[in-house]
Amino acid sequence: MSSFARRLGDRLAGELPHLPEYGVDLDDPQHYSDNSRVKNLADGTFAIAMTLLAFSLIALIPGKTVSVAGWAGLQNFFATFGEPLLVYAMTFVVLGTFWVTHAIMFHYVVRSDRPLMTRTVTLLLVVCLVPFSTQFLAQHPLDQLAIGVYAANLILCGLGLQRTFAYALQDRHLLHPVLDRRLVRAMSLTISIGPILYLLAIVVSFIQPQVAFALCFLVPIATFFPNPFWGRLFRRFVGTDEEAHRPVPRAP
Amino acid sequence: MSSFARRLGDRLAGELPHLPEYGVDLDDPQHYSDNSRVKNLADGTFAIAMTLLAFSLIALIPGKTVSVAGWAGLQNFFATFGEPLLVYAMTFVVLGTFWVTHAIMFHYVVRSDRPLMTRTVTLLLVVCLVPFSTQFLAQHPLDQLAIGVYAANLILCGLGLQRTFAYALQDRHLLHPVLDRRLVRAMSLTISIGPILYLLAIVVSFIQPQVAFALCFLVPIATFFPNPFWGRLFRRFVGTDEEAHRPVPRAP
Amino acid sequence: MSSFARRLGDRLAGELPHLPEYGVDLDDPQHYSDNSRVKNLADGTFAIAMTLLAFSLIALIPGKTVSVAGWAGLQNFFATFGEPLLVYAMTFVVLGTFWVTHAIMFHYVVRSDRPLMTRTVTLLLVVCLVPFSTQFLAQHPLDQLAIGVYAANLILCGLGLQRTFAYALQDRHLLHPVLDRRLVRAMSLTISIGPILYLLAIVVSFIQPQVAFALCFLVPIATFFPNPFWGRLFRRFVGTDEEAHRPVPRAP
Amino acid sequence: MSSFARRLGDRLAGELPHLPEYGVDLDDPQHYSDNSRVKNLADGTFAIAMTLLAFSLIALIPGKTVSVAGWAGLQNFFATFGEPLLVYAMTFVVLGTFWVTHAIMFHYVVRSDRPLMTRTVTLLLVVCLVPFSTQFLAQHPLDQLAIGVYAANLILCGLGLQRTFAYALQDRHLLHPVLDRRLVRAMSLTISIGPILYLLAIVVSFIQPQVAFALCFLVPIATFFPNPFWGRLFRRFVGTDEEAHRPVPRAP
Repeated sequence: MSSFARRLGDRLAGELPHLPEYGVDLDDPQHYSDNSRVKNLADGTFAIAMTLLAFSLIALIPGKTVSVAGWAGLQNFFATFGEPLLVYAMTFVVLGTFWVTHAIMFHYVVRSDRPLMTRTVTLLLVVCLVPFSTQFLAQHPLDQLAIGVYAANLILCGLGLQRTFAYALQDRHLLHPVLDRRLVRAMSLTISIGPILYLLAIVVSFIQPQVAFALCFLVPIATFFPNPFWGRLFRRFVGTDEEAHRPVPRAP
Repeated sequence: MSSFARRLGDRLAGELPHLPEYGVDLDDPQHYSDNSRVKNLADGTFAIAMTLLAFSLIALIPGKTVSVAGWAGLQNFFATFGEPLLVYAMTFVVLGTFWVTHAIMFHYVVRSDRPLMTRTVTLLLVVCLVPFSTQFLAQHPLDQLAIGVYAANLILCGLGLQRTFAYALQDRHLLHPVLDRRLVRAMSLTISIGPILYLLAIVVSFIQPQVAFALCFLVPIATFFPNPFWGRLFRRFVGTDEEAHRPVPRAP
Repeated sequence: MSSFARRLGDRLAGELPHLPEYGVDLDDPQHYSDNSRVKNLADGTFAIAMTLLAFSLIALIPGKTVSVAGWAGLQNFFATFGEPLLVYAMTFVVLGTFWVTHAIMFHYVVRSDRPLMTRTVTLLLVVCLVPFSTQFLAQHPLDQLAIGVYAANLILCGLGLQRTFAYALQDRHLLHPVLDRRLVRAMSLTISIGPILYLLAIVVSFIQPQVAFALCFLVPIATFFPNPFWGRLFRRFVGTDEEAHRPVPRAP
Repeated sequence: MSSFARRLGDRLAGELPHLPEYGVDLDDPQHYSDNSRVKNLADGTFAIAMTLLAFSLIALIPGKTVSVAGWAGLQNFFATFGEPLLVYAMTFVVLGTFWVTHAIMFHYVVRSDRPLMTRTVTLLLVVCLVPFSTQFLAQHPLDQLAIGVYAANLILCGLGLQRTFAYALQDRHLLHPVLDRRLVRAMSLTISIGPILYLLAIVVSFIQPQVAFALCFLVPIATFFPNPFWGRLFRRFVGTDEEAHRPVPRAP
């Protein structure tokens, strides 16, 4: 097959005059693809993973017509679907926060190279497992193992996101010229809260599964919705409001 | 992990000269991402939710070969698939109308920020539940609870869409310079008809489930297809035709 | 809710100076969205529908370990999966041809409006049913009803595509200035071959289901792969080769 | 239907003055669509196929609450999910490598025509089968037939990718003016390693299924992760480092 590659290359050099005769520097920025493919794959995968979270609920629909209606029927409904719906909403919002962070960060990561792509694939590898671990938790909400699997999966998602960003931030060829380090800190912090709380949940699940389950619910509350405590934390790491409104020198 | 964020920030400041030394204003428009990610996630999620609507029909395929053919076979087919197919088509068209409204509106919402993204995630959270509630209704078409769950889900979709638009309309940084308030009214009206009829359907389902089921069918008919009554309604809220054809001053 | 829309409009007029005070012409081209959303939804839906075609094959995997291997195992494998795999490949290629036609045509349809979007939604409504009717055919390959459902579904896909193109071609605001009518004829022809053959298959299925099944296989062979007969047909409808290479006046 | 096409063409010629009266050269580059549709479909299909890989794991979740927890529970978990998870991760990474190669290559393939689209459809036809063959392997990891189906499917993916690239490289109208033949060789090599190892796995599976299974694992290790041996191979086929850093003449 290597002869195929060589022959292909030779034919290219011979027939296509727009191909440079000698090797060009692969590190040259004009060989960097734009990151639209990375964004597309990430958006597609997040969209599917988030939709499949809800799809598992269909298996729970009772086969026979639910005879009781009114309040009794509603109570029946929430007895069957309440817990899975809560787990679904919680996980959807956590994945949504990861997506928001990815979208904001990749607004500043304007190019991509092979290592960034492989890191994105690794990230999506664990994101795609979330419907599985969510279903596991939805079926066994207070089981220690289910909480552990769920928390471990979302910790891996958070670490995968950190790793992708850390790589992109090392290489200024990949970055937009205007990138505020306050934004980087804010993003880093947002995606660090989840893994910390999930790690806590794993430890606590050995003693009190109920508390561990509640800790998992704390993650979307702490990272998705704006809250005053979060604001204060952000101010410490991201900078004070005064700093934010100070006029700053712009990149030319 | 905070030390990681700080260290990351410090390294960035030291190594990457294109990062401003002091904080920049995060409200600055050049920090606003374009809304392509929001559009991509919405398109992906709508596409998957709409496709999964039909996927549940596969479970209804009879295991054995359907021996009777001709008209008797066709009658058999519609006895089995008629109702689910109708519910599928109805819901597909309603989701389609939501998507059309979203697409038209986001033609004028040209930028996005974190709150718009979180509102989009919340909207998609309820959109992803539609295959579930549709399947519930398809299995129990005249059950009061099923109608209630279905109607409530689509009411939430409508409200989520309203909420997303309301946020975008408040912030002119996010909008295209040319946005007609007649269009805003038309969009608002289109996505209001559904929730109103669904609310009516929930109330009616306590008395006559058949009528409530029929009311659900009224929504795609009233919002997807053009009809004269709709035109008259639109004229009242959107402006007369004379107004529409009057020459108007353009934004510079 | 109408008061909400009015209030929203009033607030907009008051607060956002870039909104024109009086109504603007909604038919104005600057109100036409670009068709990227339509393309995205179509690409997403086709991608999912085509992937779900194969997903149904998973249900056929035997639970126990297949003890026999070698040629006997392979024979076993094709006895179980041969027919479904053929139906899958055939349908995938037909959907692929629809997608190729859509992609080529929408290269020239550069803008979109509400009616084009609703027509796209109607088209995707029948495209999303294809995994269902394919599964029906795969389970009952020689059943008259299954062939009828499958053929009817793909006829509707073809007509939906024709209808979408017919609308776009009527409105030159939606079209790219350079659009060759030979291309339009070629596209029209390609997506007409399928429905004609499927109609024939439905008629034949009343007499000989085996022949009808074979007719369905003719569609991808006639439209996806290049063949000499197709070339002669194309020349008649699309124009001769001499015409093709004659220098033509360009749009300024 | 041909009269419909002719009538459509005639109406177009009559009503739309921007359509050229005589045929235009279909080989003219302005009739080449950009390849955004091809990229979108490929991204969508890869995203869905990769997500569905993990979705099959849900069927393995035990119905009853897993009573044992701690280390015993973890052992139980890996007894049930260890092998499927490994197969999932392995296949995800292989598909990821295919996607990365596609994304890098299509950074240089900037336009598309019908044959490129049909080749993409054929490629995706076999990519969509990967969730099926992966599930087959996950359920029967040491079965000769399962290894054969899995390996054959991924060989077809590799060949489909080669075929798509080979077509694009033949037509310089489709290519970006700057395309390095070293890059072409590297891509060709990367997607050749997989099929060669899989072919070996099929042969070995007749003697030692365990070794064949291990050979499948070698593919992601050899192509996804950077390794020194890979670097040496690349240097031989792609060019030496000295060549890479030599200044080269640029395309004007």
